[in-house]
Amino acid sequence: MDSSVTMEKIVSLAKRRGFVFQSSEIYGGQAGAWDYGPAGIELKNRIQRFWWKEMTQLHDDIVGLDAAILMHPRVWEASGHVENFTDPLVDCKKCKQRFRADMIPEEKLAKKECPECGGELTDTRKFNLMFKTNIGPVDDGTGLIYLRPETAQGIYVNYKNIAQSNRMKLPFGIAQVGKAFRNEIVTKNFIFRTCEFEQMEMQYFVKPGEDEKWFDYWREQRWAYYQKLGVRMDKLRWHRHGPGELAHYAKDAYDIEYEFPMGWKELEGVHNRSDYDLSRHQQFSGKDLQYIDQDNGNARYIPYIIETSAGLTRQLLMVLCDAYDEEYVGTDKAEGVSEGNSESNAQRSMDDWRTVLHFHPELAPVTVAVLPLMKKDGLAELAQDIRKELKEDFSTDYDQGGAIGRRYRRQDEIGTPFCVTIDYQSKEDGTVTVRYRDSMEQVRVPRAELAARIRADIKAYKRA
Amino acid sequence: MDSSVTMEKIVSLAKRRGFVFQSSEIYGGQAGAWDYGPAGIELKNRIQRFWWKEMTQLHDDIVGLDAAILMHPRVWEASGHVENFTDPLVDCKKCKQRFRADMIPEEKLAKKECPECGGELTDTRKFNLMFKTNIGPVDDGTGLIYLRPETAQGIYVNYKNIAQSNRMKLPFGIAQVGKAFRNEIVTKNFIFRTCEFEQMEMQYFVKPGEDEKWFDYWREQRWAYYQKLGVRMDKLRWHRHGPGELAHYAKDAYDIEYEFPMGWKELEGVHNRSDYDLSRHQQFSGKDLQYIDQDNGNARYIPYIIETSAGLTRQLLMVLCDAYDEEYVGTDKAEGVSEGNSESNAQRSMDDWRTVLHFHPELAPVTVAVLPLMKKDGLAELAQDIRKELKEDFSTDYDQGGAIGRRYRRQDEIGTPFCVTIDYQSKEDGTVTVRYRDSMEQVRVPRAELAARIRADIKAYKRA
Repeated sequence: MDSSVTMEKIVSLAKRRGFVFQSSEIYGGQAGAWDYGPAGIELKNRIQRFWWKEMTQLHDDIVGLDAAILMHPRVWEASGHVENFTDPLVDCKKCKQRFRADMIPEEKLAKKECPECGGELTDTRKFNLMFKTNIGPVDDGTGLIYLRPETAQGIYVNYKNIAQSNRMKLPFGIAQVGKAFRNEIVTKNFIFRTCEFEQMEMQYFVKPGEDEKWFDYWREQRWAYYQKLGVRMDKLRWHRHGPGELAHYAKDAYDIEYEFPMGWKELEGVHNRSDYDLSRHQQFSGKDLQYIDQDNGNARYIPYIIETSAGLTRQLLMVLCDAYDEEYVGTDKAEGVSEGNSESNAQRSMDDWRTVLHFHPELAPVTVAVLPLMKKDGLAELAQDIRKELKEDFSTDYDQGGAIGRRYRRQDEIGTPFCVTIDYQSKEDGTVTVRYRDSMEQVRVPRAELAARIRADIKAYKRA
Repeated sequence: MDSSVTMEKIVSLAKRRGFVFQSSEIYGGQAGAWDYGPAGIELKNRIQRFWWKEMTQLHDDIVGLDAAILMHPRVWEASGHVENFTDPLVDCKKCKQRFRADMIPEEKLAKKECPECGGELTDTRKFNLMFKTNIGPVDDGTGLIYLRPETAQGIYVNYKNIAQSNRMKLPFGIAQVGKAFRNEIVTKNFIFRTCEFEQMEMQYFVKPGEDEKWFDYWREQRWAYYQKLGVRMDKLRWHRHGPGELAHYAKDAYDIEYEFPMGWKELEGVHNRSDYDLSRHQQFSGKDLQYIDQDNGNARYIPYIIETSAGLTRQLLMVLCDAYDEEYVGTDKAEGVSEGNSESNAQRSMDDWRTVLHFHPELAPVTVAVLPLMKKDGLAELAQDIRKELKEDFSTDYDQGGAIGRRYRRQDEIGTPFCVTIDYQSKEDGTVTVRYRDSMEQVRVPRAELAARIRADIKAYKRA
């Protein structure tokens, strides 16, 4: 049995256990869009909260924002997206296929030769990746508006309002999580590159001259974030943008890359954007966007911006891949399959393997599953009662069907860190069994101490 | 002084204190869209979490979903939106203004007379409210796609996938929070009616014949939700749709209305949608969407749907209006303004009034503000130290500027339920003062008991 993680396994598990579905599947699917099922939205929400807490609640000088997807169209002229946010496309005059010019082998492109049929290619033309729509009742172009291709600009145009309303002094940051849309011609690798996606961005405004210091600070902070998130640090690396890679606004740029099953790919960017963004918005809006430095004789200047830009949906894919494991657990770890069930040897040997998601407990879609050993003799009622007690504070699941070992495996597959089993002894002495996902250890705990025990275990969690 | 709540006051406070800004304000604003500032996004996130917990975590038979905004275009043919989701529009041939026909006085419309200039009106034509865009590199209409005008359809098309992945049995529900877009010609009342907005919907799938029972159940549940949310229940009422108001899919429908400053308006709908939605999607997709009832001899039928549909951004406006108060607090409640400050009488008399937001503590953007009485003598350091202790578990703020009474007022304005004041006694005996937003009472608490005290106060909260 090949236990290495592949995209096929991830996609299959994601669908089977309700993490990610193809969008509009009953209509044949909508390319470039995905739906997050019950486990997927819980995981996504938790990653988002983890990031949000880390960036805002734990950083005194960062506040949040949620700007609209529909922004004034001039924003995208100022940002350079109308002019520059394009892919080069060519058509084949013979087979009518369309290609991204930068994905055609150079010698074919030079000869204008179609890589598929050998026919003649058209000249390269620019294709803008922004989705356009029309607002207002007239469809004559006067209501042209774009779906934002990134969330960052919403922060820049609000920087003065926020500095004022929250009396912020430099350096300070604004954090935002939200959807962005890109009309990508090539969407691929499951949810890695899609037309509709979510970003988690923090823009940090600093005094010019202090930008390099803060750039270094944020690179450290963002690296430490992934440690806290509990992913395998040997799967992460830095990639510094070379002179040819640097965006027009960037003074310096590093990406954090993760080793996905399909190779090393960008996970997050930490960029020194200089004063490019605010200067452009000042120019295009005609509004004074200078900061007035009251601590330095009311000096006026355009702040520099250090950006940390991560993809939420991409981070979800990373967390899924990173947590995924297939483990041989052997018959000695059959976990109570022998207790009161009559399964065949074939079923038992299936149970020798488990698929498990080693999520950080704070990220797991279900925190505690409550499992009565049997339905009868009041065990189900007792288990329901315990679930009721826990669900105010934890995300819970309840499962009373089938052998206990199989039920553990079902929880392992969605990464539930704690299973609580209720058996006959529970009725007698008020204890329950806590079964740990990663170690598969089982510990008896008095019911009254259960919630506190789980809380402490979550806090003490370290990836094995 | 007129202390009644008006939309003008809400809009002004919302901007001044960072709840809501006009979108793209530096470019003159984008009609129909709003940005949520630091206090606004925290409030919105908390309302969303409150609803999500109530609907999913506390209801064993409801799971979550997050479907994409971009769905297959056939979805909107099946739902009836392509054909029916329209406003009737007329133009004036003389003054060129455009009107919603249903907003023109009947006798003017009958005479085809412009209500503004008396000129001749065109015939009424249907204007579809869905935003259209194009996906893919060709702009010839083959890539036509809509921004979803409601989130509900994402739930319907995923119902079979979710029933399977999560082994759900009827009755069960699917909850979703997400953005929707409508090209509204008339956007008004601040964030009440906008082109971009957020919905919180739960669709509950039931056996036909049991729909009326569950319809009643969900009306009760949703009413109880607002009680839990801590809003004034005398501001809420039911409105049952009359025969002329019922949507084509609805068997029965009630709205919960709130008395906003601009009058009674719809806050949430509870609808019995019959089997309309799934029948239509079965017909248009050609997929079998029947439920197989294993507990009833594998009977097959299309479930009925009970929908509870609320607006998140609208609920935020409701919470803001409901929490808003201006109170005369008098000089006897000047709250330490006399302690070590030298403000003028004029300033003091301003302090006799306060604007306060009586949010439920779980909804307040900042839960605890930490305030050193003075910056000097190590009080600031001690306060920072206490903040550091609290911020892992609470959303905190820190403010060391100006008279303590003025700082309380600033926190009152954003609805902070607890202020913790650090004074000279704190240095001596390790106690701090907890000052309560609603009662303005002050209680000395040992520092070691502070977090537990706040947690207990949040749980015990009842709206005065």
